[in-house]
Amino acid sequence: MKVALIGVGMIGGSLLAAWRQAGLLSAAAGFDIDPQALATATGRGLIERSAGSVAEAVAGADLVLVATPVGAMGEVFGQLAPALAPDAVVTDVGSTKSDVIAHAQAALGEASARFVPAHPIAGKELPGVAHADAGLLVGKRVIVTPAADTRADALSRVERLFAAAGATVERMDAGEHDRIFAAVSHLPHLLSFALIAAIGAEADGERKLGYGAAGFRDFTRIAASSPVMWRDICVANRLALGDALRRYRELLDRLQRAVDAGDGPALQRTFEQAARLRRQWAGAADAE
Amino acid sequence: MKVALIGVGMIGGSLLAAWRQAGLLSAAAGFDIDPQALATATGRGLIERSAGSVAEAVAGADLVLVATPVGAMGEVFGQLAPALAPDAVVTDVGSTKSDVIAHAQAALGEASARFVPAHPIAGKELPGVAHADAGLLVGKRVIVTPAADTRADALSRVERLFAAAGATVERMDAGEHDRIFAAVSHLPHLLSFALIAAIGAEADGERKLGYGAAGFRDFTRIAASSPVMWRDICVANRLALGDALRRYRELLDRLQRAVDAGDGPALQRTFEQAARLRRQWAGAADAE
Repeated sequence: MKVALIGVGMIGGSLLAAWRQAGLLSAAAGFDIDPQALATATGRGLIERSAGSVAEAVAGADLVLVATPVGAMGEVFGQLAPALAPDAVVTDVGSTKSDVIAHAQAALGEASARFVPAHPIAGKELPGVAHADAGLLVGKRVIVTPAADTRADALSRVERLFAAAGATVERMDAGEHDRIFAAVSHLPHLLSFALIAAIGAEADGERKLGYGAAGFRDFTRIAASSPVMWRDICVANRLALGDALRRYRELLDRLQRAVDAGDGPALQRTFEQAARLRRQWAGAADAE
Repeated sequence: MKVALIGVGMIGGSLLAAWRQAGLLSAAAGFDIDPQALATATGRGLIERSAGSVAEAVAGADLVLVATPVGAMGEVFGQLAPALAPDAVVTDVGSTKSDVIAHAQAALGEASARFVPAHPIAGKELPGVAHADAGLLVGKRVIVTPAADTRADALSRVERLFAAAGATVERMDAGEHDRIFAAVSHLPHLLSFALIAAIGAEADGERKLGYGAAGFRDFTRIAASSPVMWRDICVANRLALGDALRRYRELLDRLQRAVDAGDGPALQRTFEQAARLRRQWAGAADAE
């Protein structure tokens, strides 16, 4: 299999490494707007060919893996469409799916039937292709969200490839995917960024941060994530994220009234619901 | 030194263990509304005497350590006042300070000059005296917030005792303490509880939780904390917490408008401020 990797980062590099290890890869070309990423990927033996454009990377590829921030995917699909081989399959690793599907359908025309939208649920705390790891997806989930016109052969081919990297593949409706990840990923990132920004905006904010302990460290770990990547995700998934944020703000309005009134029972009810669910969830998740 | 521990939990038990290890403790009595906590503390050799009331524990003690949830401290001070020896010193380990000082002054009368308000900044993830650990405060900070009438000898005695447990002691105004911990502790706990509660309130909330990954796990770890303890803290510190929550909600209002409008640059500005501060802070804190 000849692969073109567009956006040479941690996730894409890890998939190439896994496929190479599995003996599935005969050649890999990469394109990235950052020449350093291409040099690192070449130096690590993840790609053999650094392409000067999206089209140059895609030419002759059997599989095109789009692994840029989701905000760049519309443009990338536009650039790869003219160069795509007749039987080539396209997939992506974006954290949002409805908007990526819309971009693919707008840019790829009939070839959008060979686009398989995918989202690997894998940690991204150390970004960059330097941290690519063949074992990244072992035991992790990859959610694929085929559109109505997705070809079954393309879908099963991409599913087999993620499974070959060690992942468990799950099919889901793109809209449901976006609502789920708005709640359990995009919203907590926004809230964590917002807490640090709100404290930082105060005159003595940096002094206050100096007193943050272990709980604060955990809560704000995701606020060290890439601002550009998360800007793209929040914009791409703005409908589902906006709804989730609105519901969360309504709960905060109620909690504000409870705090101001010193209404212990109201606070306790919410805290108990949460603690019970969190303990249930972590119990199950820790056993994974 | 003879110590009376009121509220036999992880923090109080750890202090007794540290003082015993340092050779400072000649006798320790404990009172708790939970007989099991007293039995565990006796079994572990942390206390020699299980008292049947606050007053019985306090009789004859040189030092009274109040380690109940902050919501119970007003009542505890009222019960210990009549039994307090003339030279005995009282301290506490509550997470809020202005309200605890107000309770002490109301209940202790002149003896409130021998009350030294304190807050050890130490993890409480495994609650209960069964998890008491003599090394808990080693390298940690303890903030003491003396009131205007606090006696210097009582203050320095309590500071020496926390230092003997391995902590670094820092003096601070109680109001400033409460504003700082509203921002970096009480508000994130409330927000983390609220996220789980908001997701749990949705029809498919439990299904959504099943897709939470590492970032969600970190963000919501503190939502497994004790609902009663955090109810008490939020009520006790409702003024500073209410202000911090109001400022946070104002930022969320702006972020809601940015999400709804797909305003990437506005989101990116906030995310970049936050990521820069979080990375600065974690760099310094990780080097501790």
